[in-house]
Amino acid sequence: MPILPIDSGRYGTDEMKEIFDDQKKITYQLDIEAAVALSQSEIKMIPKDAALNISKMARSGKISVKRVKQLEAKSDHDTAALVEALSEICKPSAKPWIHYGLTSNDLVDTSNSLQIRDTLQIIEPKVAKLAIILADQAIKYKGLPAVGRTHGQHASIISFGLKFANWSLEMSKHVERIEEIKKRVLICKTLGVVGTGSLMGAKALEVQKRVAQKLELYPAEVTTQIVARERYAEFIFYMALIGSTLEKIAVEIRNLQRTEIGEVAESFKKGQMGSSAVPVKRNPVKSERVTSLSRLLRSQISVAFENIPLWHERDLSNSANERFIIPTSSILLDEMLGTMTRIVSSLFVNEYRIRQNLEITRGQIFAEFVLDALIQKGVPRFEAYRDIQRVAFASLEDGTDFKEAVKNDKAFSAHLTNEEIDKIFIPENHLGASFDIIKKVSNKVKNSCSKFS
Amino acid sequence: MPILPIDSGRYGTDEMKEIFDDQKKITYQLDIEAAVALSQSEIKMIPKDAALNISKMARSGKISVKRVKQLEAKSDHDTAALVEALSEICKPSAKPWIHYGLTSNDLVDTSNSLQIRDTLQIIEPKVAKLAIILADQAIKYKGLPAVGRTHGQHASIISFGLKFANWSLEMSKHVERIEEIKKRVLICKTLGVVGTGSLMGAKALEVQKRVAQKLELYPAEVTTQIVARERYAEFIFYMALIGSTLEKIAVEIRNLQRTEIGEVAESFKKGQMGSSAVPVKRNPVKSERVTSLSRLLRSQISVAFENIPLWHERDLSNSANERFIIPTSSILLDEMLGTMTRIVSSLFVNEYRIRQNLEITRGQIFAEFVLDALIQKGVPRFEAYRDIQRVAFASLEDGTDFKEAVKNDKAFSAHLTNEEIDKIFIPENHLGASFDIIKKVSNKVKNSCSKFS
Amino acid sequence: MPILPIDSGRYGTDEMKEIFDDQKKITYQLDIEAAVALSQSEIKMIPKDAALNISKMARSGKISVKRVKQLEAKSDHDTAALVEALSEICKPSAKPWIHYGLTSNDLVDTSNSLQIRDTLQIIEPKVAKLAIILADQAIKYKGLPAVGRTHGQHASIISFGLKFANWSLEMSKHVERIEEIKKRVLICKTLGVVGTGSLMGAKALEVQKRVAQKLELYPAEVTTQIVARERYAEFIFYMALIGSTLEKIAVEIRNLQRTEIGEVAESFKKGQMGSSAVPVKRNPVKSERVTSLSRLLRSQISVAFENIPLWHERDLSNSANERFIIPTSSILLDEMLGTMTRIVSSLFVNEYRIRQNLEITRGQIFAEFVLDALIQKGVPRFEAYRDIQRVAFASLEDGTDFKEAVKNDKAFSAHLTNEEIDKIFIPENHLGASFDIIKKVSNKVKNSCSKFS
Amino acid sequence: MPILPIDSGRYGTDEMKEIFDDQKKITYQLDIEAAVALSQSEIKMIPKDAALNISKMARSGKISVKRVKQLEAKSDHDTAALVEALSEICKPSAKPWIHYGLTSNDLVDTSNSLQIRDTLQIIEPKVAKLAIILADQAIKYKGLPAVGRTHGQHASIISFGLKFANWSLEMSKHVERIEEIKKRVLICKTLGVVGTGSLMGAKALEVQKRVAQKLELYPAEVTTQIVARERYAEFIFYMALIGSTLEKIAVEIRNLQRTEIGEVAESFKKGQMGSSAVPVKRNPVKSERVTSLSRLLRSQISVAFENIPLWHERDLSNSANERFIIPTSSILLDEMLGTMTRIVSSLFVNEYRIRQNLEITRGQIFAEFVLDALIQKGVPRFEAYRDIQRVAFASLEDGTDFKEAVKNDKAFSAHLTNEEIDKIFIPENHLGASFDIIKKVSNKVKNSCSKFS
Repeated sequence: MPILPIDSGRYGTDEMKEIFDDQKKITYQLDIEAAVALSQSEIKMIPKDAALNISKMARSGKISVKRVKQLEAKSDHDTAALVEALSEICKPSAKPWIHYGLTSNDLVDTSNSLQIRDTLQIIEPKVAKLAIILADQAIKYKGLPAVGRTHGQHASIISFGLKFANWSLEMSKHVERIEEIKKRVLICKTLGVVGTGSLMGAKALEVQKRVAQKLELYPAEVTTQIVARERYAEFIFYMALIGSTLEKIAVEIRNLQRTEIGEVAESFKKGQMGSSAVPVKRNPVKSERVTSLSRLLRSQISVAFENIPLWHERDLSNSANERFIIPTSSILLDEMLGTMTRIVSSLFVNEYRIRQNLEITRGQIFAEFVLDALIQKGVPRFEAYRDIQRVAFASLEDGTDFKEAVKNDKAFSAHLTNEEIDKIFIPENHLGASFDIIKKVSNKVKNSCSKFS
Repeated sequence: MPILPIDSGRYGTDEMKEIFDDQKKITYQLDIEAAVALSQSEIKMIPKDAALNISKMARSGKISVKRVKQLEAKSDHDTAALVEALSEICKPSAKPWIHYGLTSNDLVDTSNSLQIRDTLQIIEPKVAKLAIILADQAIKYKGLPAVGRTHGQHASIISFGLKFANWSLEMSKHVERIEEIKKRVLICKTLGVVGTGSLMGAKALEVQKRVAQKLELYPAEVTTQIVARERYAEFIFYMALIGSTLEKIAVEIRNLQRTEIGEVAESFKKGQMGSSAVPVKRNPVKSERVTSLSRLLRSQISVAFENIPLWHERDLSNSANERFIIPTSSILLDEMLGTMTRIVSSLFVNEYRIRQNLEITRGQIFAEFVLDALIQKGVPRFEAYRDIQRVAFASLEDGTDFKEAVKNDKAFSAHLTNEEIDKIFIPENHLGASFDIIKKVSNKVKNSCSKFS
Repeated sequence: MPILPIDSGRYGTDEMKEIFDDQKKITYQLDIEAAVALSQSEIKMIPKDAALNISKMARSGKISVKRVKQLEAKSDHDTAALVEALSEICKPSAKPWIHYGLTSNDLVDTSNSLQIRDTLQIIEPKVAKLAIILADQAIKYKGLPAVGRTHGQHASIISFGLKFANWSLEMSKHVERIEEIKKRVLICKTLGVVGTGSLMGAKALEVQKRVAQKLELYPAEVTTQIVARERYAEFIFYMALIGSTLEKIAVEIRNLQRTEIGEVAESFKKGQMGSSAVPVKRNPVKSERVTSLSRLLRSQISVAFENIPLWHERDLSNSANERFIIPTSSILLDEMLGTMTRIVSSLFVNEYRIRQNLEITRGQIFAEFVLDALIQKGVPRFEAYRDIQRVAFASLEDGTDFKEAVKNDKAFSAHLTNEEIDKIFIPENHLGASFDIIKKVSNKVKNSCSKFS
Repeated sequence: MPILPIDSGRYGTDEMKEIFDDQKKITYQLDIEAAVALSQSEIKMIPKDAALNISKMARSGKISVKRVKQLEAKSDHDTAALVEALSEICKPSAKPWIHYGLTSNDLVDTSNSLQIRDTLQIIEPKVAKLAIILADQAIKYKGLPAVGRTHGQHASIISFGLKFANWSLEMSKHVERIEEIKKRVLICKTLGVVGTGSLMGAKALEVQKRVAQKLELYPAEVTTQIVARERYAEFIFYMALIGSTLEKIAVEIRNLQRTEIGEVAESFKKGQMGSSAVPVKRNPVKSERVTSLSRLLRSQISVAFENIPLWHERDLSNSANERFIIPTSSILLDEMLGTMTRIVSSLFVNEYRIRQNLEITRGQIFAEFVLDALIQKGVPRFEAYRDIQRVAFASLEDGTDFKEAVKNDKAFSAHLTNEEIDKIFIPENHLGASFDIIKKVSNKVKNSCSKFS
């Protein structure tokens, strides 16, 4: 019976999970063996005939997880078992040249890079696509004035589209980040036991360069037995950072979907139950799930960090935990991206409630603009500020309308006509540079993300 | 194909993994439904006949994971699906009383407690047993003088048994800790949607008390919809803390097994491969694995902490990640305990190398005792200290024996006879209170742990 | 100029900060030197006269931070400098017996314990006092029905006092936890360089026992050069756990103080500014600060964990970071406790808004109880559930009152009279066992916490 | 009295600490006020005369920390107090235009960026310089064969210079990383309360662009009240990542300095004490300190992450903890870089011990190369492997020399002459591509880092 919710089918897309299943891992490692043998034969390090046989058998699909596990049961060493399984089906003259000059970890680290390469090929387009969807939502709602909240309190007026623009820009920055780290993360390493490429001698770098090219990876410039774990920390960090932007969006949706706010709602499947006790609720469960998984995602960074200072040319203390954190980061982020894309694409935006909420403070949300109007009229900032505070608190206590209170107070009427005051209290007048910001962000996001989505 | 190494069979005992598989989780939750129905009928809250039917059906073994998943596919709600599956096989008059007064999360949290209860029933005896094995090793090696190292440098003489005594005591403290947290962690909660037990009214606490008794749990004193997540953080923390003591032992074994030190070695299976390139190595791979998994274990604490400040009577942001961290903590700690018990039980202790290492510094390791001898003779501490430093550094540079240098230097010969000096350089003379400490620890550990192992 | 906000005076009470300033640290370590000398003389290990002189000088107040720093500049070793400073003022016959049989870290670890002892003497009463204040608030608001929210959605009715009862109980559990860990955390260690007490021989344990008694600490049972860092992790963890309960309260206050909810408000100082742009806002800044500091507090757990697996009899890699995490945890938690006590004591609870919010869903919050009433009448649970869902969604769309919709729908009117329906929609009828729970919790908290507050 | 070891003077350079002291923070924020006023006047948003007066007063040095603290005591708001202090000394006609269109957090976030800008101006050259020093060491020791260790076991031969080359390359990658993140991290934000730049209307972006240029920052493209905290997480992460590479170097030095290995030693100050009990030890205390502080550095990442999903247009929960983590990360990393530069520059490399250690395994370290020689002669890999294992374990048990055992065993003598065998056991023959790797890395590092150091 499955235990963890990735294996039980609860989380994870098939395309992403396939990258990390046992069979695929073998395939990646056999691809490396093939690429190494071919590269070595190209520069006459091993016989061409042997290389062709190794390559053919490695890609024959004949090596099963089952056989490798049987051999591992004897040797207690999974990579050695793979090499043995390959050896079993190669012809005698090829056998000595299998895995030539390599160490087990060359397969492990380079296949990790292949997994990460394929992970990013799934993740990056989804990030780019979400950036564009968010940009479209930003444009769609750019003219809708809404409450801007700080400290959980009504603070000022925003364009509702600005929320999406913020998220969109950050998603596009994630594309930029992914592009930047590829050259450091997607490393091909075939330099043997302690990074000298000793058995291949001076030609070791040439072999590695050719292998890297075949595998669409970057050749390592220098390593110990392993690729520097700073690179893995960078990968895990950025997966978690993307997750945190998704979490930021999720938390905002959860807050805006509150019964008392009601500005958005996740779409709700026909027949879906909100609660076993209270049937009418529409809980933002998808956003809550994204929030939850984000915590797990970023907890893995500390593991990646502790794997950095390994002893000497390597110790094994990174091995067991990387079997968890690399697939978990990849699979859960992919899940979260899919979920968030669905949430945002089908998000119900309640324009009625958004406009209604602007009136909750009975005009006090315009205080900033009254302040500005007074300053424009030459009233000293601190004097104006104290006047507004006085009137605002008074009308709060009396339960009266702030606009009326302003009109009726000499501190204001001495400087502003009723007409001027009325104009201040129109939300559309306070979107500031929102249009400009949103338009520029949208253009920039589309320019930078279209080619990746 | 399995993905994560718990599901692939790489890590985890069957007995522990069973607690967390999908079928067992259903069994736990049905046990709760049965206990609730019976308790409610005992105090006449629901008809006895209904309760007996619910209880019988819940324990009939007829409800399969498959059926629950089918129903979940419709409702998107796993607990609701379980209740529906139970309802399907109960008789009509019992149906209204199924899950009566409960909310889904009553099942979730209380079944978590049942899992943790059973986890601790596996973990605690293993901790206690390991404490006792370590105490035995401490006694066995109490008379063996060995190098004590600080900062990676030879510092003084210890009894080799003292290492085990330190670990043994801490394992026994873990038993003490487990005992202390049970009352806060093994919580039965059946107080409904928002913790008022509303549908059961004033009798809600009485029902909960009876359910708790049946399930061998502690009744919640007050809750929101959920048990306070401080309790879960405590559980996750202590699992990780036990893991860290195991890691501490593992790191020491890895250090002592270094080629240059060679004081211990993990037992090595016939046919096991050390490396695909270097066949003669005996790598402490089990200890490295324990080190690696410990990092993962403790990374989960941050997740447990972030689940504490949920919104209002609960939000769902703890849910998805708890599906990972509770089983992972339990299964990996169990795996690590088993591994460490095997390592320690079959540890090869190389007494020859231990004694040989005492001589590496050519006598300088006895400097502390020369210092003391001088002080005992009335030489001021700082004067004595500087003399020893002078002679020690000189003999280090000359490559000469420290004992001889001491004998030949007037700063020492003025105060100490050659016979006295010879006596200082016998390691057995410097075990201090080691025997006493080890014996007391051993007795204490056995007294406190025997009943749990 | 000060840098970090503890030293700049922004955070931290004087009484707590005093425990961690440089002068006090010296005082603690000199107290240990005195206690060791006296204990050693009691059992004739060192001359009584020397012990009295050491003790007198150690407690003379003549040793300044300045002098110790001067000596440290030469030796690069702070504890050695302290011992030298003590030696300078002792009489010649006493000098050899200063720091006799000790290693520097005996002072470090035991003075850490003294700091933690005094920290807990400040923290524990504040935790206990806050538990009692919260219990009083629970009692005060036990009869006030309020909206219970799950997933940010209105879910059911609670007693408003229940919120406080939950927090109160958990604070009392923290007192219980503090009591439990003292025996493991407040450790006196005087067993020398590698934990054998070598220079004191078999009497080392007797000396340590006497020292521990004088310092009101627990004698170490076995150590390396240092006290097991599991103990420090436990201390740091529980400080953070208390912090997380405070954070939980803070987050709830921040949520309830939202403009749209308005059920509580932090008290607001006359003249305090909410924002430089929007004067009328009342931001929950104290609760936000508690939230913020809690994150920092718990981040330190990972540091404490990584300090556990030191090499051999110790390495120094715990030292520098413990100079941060022990004072930071203590000082910030104390600050947060003070802040939260002030917040809760002067919290403005807006009963009007609390009652008003019960009506926001136009009756739908009572759905759970309509469901129950139907079940009580024999309607199958899933049938009743679907009916409620249907009517609830319909009235949501029409903007009509749920109670009226229920009365007008045959699925309900077939089973319930209008009078019965009216009774369902009275919030006071749905507090369930709230009174009972609150009263029991309040009694329990007062019983367990009074002696500590 | 100072509390934390940054303020007590224990850690931190003056140049870095100055960036974070209270006076400098005020200077940064006043610089922003000046830049904003000037920029606004350039586009006629405010009177030129007012702008010149504001700018002059802001840069007059007349505003003291003391005065700001006095004003803060009244308003409980540090930024508001600063603005008020500036207003006090400006002429009446300028007052209304101070802080025009800004919100407090514009100052906070933009001054954070100024601090980070100046931090990176200190950090980056130190990283680059260390990369170059490490490259020089790599070149210096490129021809020195040394033991390569995996799992703490002797595994193969490396060039000793390869260790430095690995570290050097990673330091140069850190320069690359710093260059990449600047554009995302050094953000100028002057868009007001909720990111609309409302009071400046459509011209808000133009003002911000001009301010950014004056402050040598990048203008924000879109914000809420605050700059996205993803950016801060990136900064904190990379500081910690650099720290982890330093930790990696430190751990290697600590391991190589072990009494039993003795390949390197930190330089030791004349008069420095190793231990209060054992005077002759040379402890790698600087490397231990780097290790210790690295743990603290990376613990702060979790704080930075939790600050990302703030509520709505911002909540304050990032504020208090950022007062700690930004200076702590910057100051400690700078300290660690200085320490590591000193360690590496003056590192004692013991070539004698390095060569001696190659002989510890009595030839077994050459096993890999014997294996290869057999394979080259046509022996199947697994057959050769098993033969080597057999002979190696036998000679280990007998305590005989591996080279002799190989010569005397038919499995080998059938394929290899004694002369060939002798050649295999010369370490210089097994440096593989080390020269090539080191030279390329050194050139690359110098090319990429020279302009920054």
